[in-house]
Amino acid sequence: MKYIFISLLLLIANYPAQSQSDEAMIRKIYNQALTKGESYEMLDYLSNEIGGRLSGSPQAAAAVEWSRQKMIAYGFDTVYLQEVMVPHWVRGKQEVAHVVNSKRLGNMDMTICAIGNSIGTGAQGVQGKIVEVKDFESLEKLGKKNLEGKIVFFNRPFDQTQIHTFKAYGGAVDQRVYGASEAAKYGAIGVVVRSMASNIDDVPHTGTLRYSDEQPKIPAVAISTIDAETLSQALEMESDMEFYFETHCEMLPDVLSYNVIGELKGSTKPNEYIVVGGHLDSWDLGDGSHDDGAGCVQSIEVLRIMKELNYKPNHTIRAVMFMNEENGMRGGNKYAEIAKEKGETHVAALESDSGGFTPRGFRTTGGDEVKQQLKAWSVLLEPYGLHDFSQPGGGADIGPLAEQGTVLFGLQPDSQRYFNYHHTTSDTFDKVNKRELELGAAAMTSLVYLIDKNGL
Amino acid sequence: MKYIFISLLLLIANYPAQSQSDEAMIRKIYNQALTKGESYEMLDYLSNEIGGRLSGSPQAAAAVEWSRQKMIAYGFDTVYLQEVMVPHWVRGKQEVAHVVNSKRLGNMDMTICAIGNSIGTGAQGVQGKIVEVKDFESLEKLGKKNLEGKIVFFNRPFDQTQIHTFKAYGGAVDQRVYGASEAAKYGAIGVVVRSMASNIDDVPHTGTLRYSDEQPKIPAVAISTIDAETLSQALEMESDMEFYFETHCEMLPDVLSYNVIGELKGSTKPNEYIVVGGHLDSWDLGDGSHDDGAGCVQSIEVLRIMKELNYKPNHTIRAVMFMNEENGMRGGNKYAEIAKEKGETHVAALESDSGGFTPRGFRTTGGDEVKQQLKAWSVLLEPYGLHDFSQPGGGADIGPLAEQGTVLFGLQPDSQRYFNYHHTTSDTFDKVNKRELELGAAAMTSLVYLIDKNGL
Repeated sequence: MKYIFISLLLLIANYPAQSQSDEAMIRKIYNQALTKGESYEMLDYLSNEIGGRLSGSPQAAAAVEWSRQKMIAYGFDTVYLQEVMVPHWVRGKQEVAHVVNSKRLGNMDMTICAIGNSIGTGAQGVQGKIVEVKDFESLEKLGKKNLEGKIVFFNRPFDQTQIHTFKAYGGAVDQRVYGASEAAKYGAIGVVVRSMASNIDDVPHTGTLRYSDEQPKIPAVAISTIDAETLSQALEMESDMEFYFETHCEMLPDVLSYNVIGELKGSTKPNEYIVVGGHLDSWDLGDGSHDDGAGCVQSIEVLRIMKELNYKPNHTIRAVMFMNEENGMRGGNKYAEIAKEKGETHVAALESDSGGFTPRGFRTTGGDEVKQQLKAWSVLLEPYGLHDFSQPGGGADIGPLAEQGTVLFGLQPDSQRYFNYHHTTSDTFDKVNKRELELGAAAMTSLVYLIDKNGL
Repeated sequence: MKYIFISLLLLIANYPAQSQSDEAMIRKIYNQALTKGESYEMLDYLSNEIGGRLSGSPQAAAAVEWSRQKMIAYGFDTVYLQEVMVPHWVRGKQEVAHVVNSKRLGNMDMTICAIGNSIGTGAQGVQGKIVEVKDFESLEKLGKKNLEGKIVFFNRPFDQTQIHTFKAYGGAVDQRVYGASEAAKYGAIGVVVRSMASNIDDVPHTGTLRYSDEQPKIPAVAISTIDAETLSQALEMESDMEFYFETHCEMLPDVLSYNVIGELKGSTKPNEYIVVGGHLDSWDLGDGSHDDGAGCVQSIEVLRIMKELNYKPNHTIRAVMFMNEENGMRGGNKYAEIAKEKGETHVAALESDSGGFTPRGFRTTGGDEVKQQLKAWSVLLEPYGLHDFSQPGGGADIGPLAEQGTVLFGLQPDSQRYFNYHHTTSDTFDKVNKRELELGAAAMTSLVYLIDKNGL
């Protein structure tokens, strides 16, 4: 008990002075972001002038050049590219799908899109009986005799009782990532996956798959949630229904691309780094405004705000636009590899890759001490609507830094709308609210400032 | 200190058992709202089949009848109407505005809408030199000699550095509410008010004004924020610019309307009431989905969920659809008046009138004890994203109950998008996210449950 009192006294004695200057700085950060912020204008350009920018595409190259020029124009101390070879998957012609001679549905068209990294069917398409399952255990039960030569329809929906929609996504996404190779084990010829969506609508959601080296590659598509429901209902009454789909996607040879890095040089610890980042690539269907244009412009904005406020960081602060998060993670891996080679010390890394929605807090991979530190800072952050520091995690692109001892953080925005747009034609600039985006940038700047100034 | 320890021990001893059953009940409430919720479907009907429902309009009558039937269909114990006379303001023909023979803008059209309760100009319109001010003090400084016969342009924008947009609204809305009579003091012939908006776009925001009995009534319109900026910039260079506007609105005689009330009868304290409500009327421009269709359907949903879960409340729980919040507050005043006449004890009242966005917490008018109680409950509510219990306030319609000793609560949703839509043609059903609306209904049900079961 005595120690608690002493700690308490120390806290009371020490906190106010530090806290007051931090409080004033954070107020300045928010004022800058909300009244003179440039994140929304940057995102407008990235989304509307460049658009969807899948790894290896001309638009991805444009995004690299745009972010390089932007950070130079803002006068960051160093701006450079980091070479990385990326996969080059292309969608090709518009996908087609329909049920075949169904008693109830006739030849009803279904709305699909190819899943990223999938092989295409080519013009001949794939046709076969379609079998609905909810999970991989069901595949095993059905076995080869029921699945060989057929199309497997994975139809496990999001668990709507999850409050964080990312948990619902986490509970369903195995179907999209591993479904093709799991179904191929039993001789299936194609896979149709219910879209990874919080809502019921007619928009299919793409995303990545991973083929196992041990199974034949079979084509995979995502079907809109409305059509997944329609198909499922029809299959209840007509179990021998056939399905046809046609995709023209293919994997081309790897392409040279880049992570784009901008730095503000540290004054007292120039060789210790704090990274703030997002991923520059996006899926091809929308313009990638929420995933992850938002994270990129917010990261640039962090450095712009610090510079604008004439804040001289102790550590070197790096904004990193990672390439190829969506279908390969090559940029994140390359960044960590080079950091290791160079023996760079990364104190902390913060990623924004959960959409440009109102920030609710930060998640972290840090242990108890880091959590205590966040808790101490929360009094400075709660007036800005940041209350949630309880979730574990960081971000996909910064993940590979963890093994070098870097403490990871992730911006935690409100998650309710994210999976209505994620990986679809609906992930567009008009879905981003200016203030919500700016509040995210200000939250990130505030955390980077607190880490830089006070340490972890 | 001893008392603190005893309190602490009592807390530790008593809390878990109560907490576990409350925890389970709240989980059931959320599961019901998120997987079998009917709030979104209700709102679809109210917004898309009935639409904007200003007091006195046929649509307001339709909304009364719809909510009455809906609550009967759900089998609430009592459903009834409470008579209330309401103002009947009508917009009439589409408003018109333009600058007049400006050197820079020519006769450029401007996007306006009449402010609610304003007199109209009639077909002859109002034309005069236009003088920009930011506040009422400037009117006084300019005085009669500079304002007589002129149109006053109130152009104080939202303070974007406010994190809660309602605070920015609160800091600007005096221009719309009192601007006409303040300008009339100095002989102005009309008023143009910058729209009460968080964003810059071409959509004008209506809302109510109050005329002073001591001044002549002059017509007032709201101008879109884009046009407010354009006009302001032009006035800097061309201070003698004239402006014309034409509105056809008028105030008709009062009309009989209703508050709509549904009850679940209390088992142990049937004569003590907990009210949950929203307002049924809306402005005429959009369909009133966020303001306040959301609050109405959420309030009905609270009782529906309790009934569906077979929860027998101790107190009588009332869902109240208040009439005429927007331009008169007659319903809220009438409800409190009748409650007082009948000597009804209202333990608590909860209003949802801040939009159907992700709930962040609750505000309250309660004193320290109530705040302590909320804090104790917060451990049950935080897993559902409810963290903010620090704001003061309740709701406009339940406000008049305060003098009877009722503790008021308000659902506190995320506020960032609200003032992009508020009182405009953009306040429509497509702006409401299903899960966000449902989370609000579940949050409200949880709080009503906690108050009913554990008292305040």
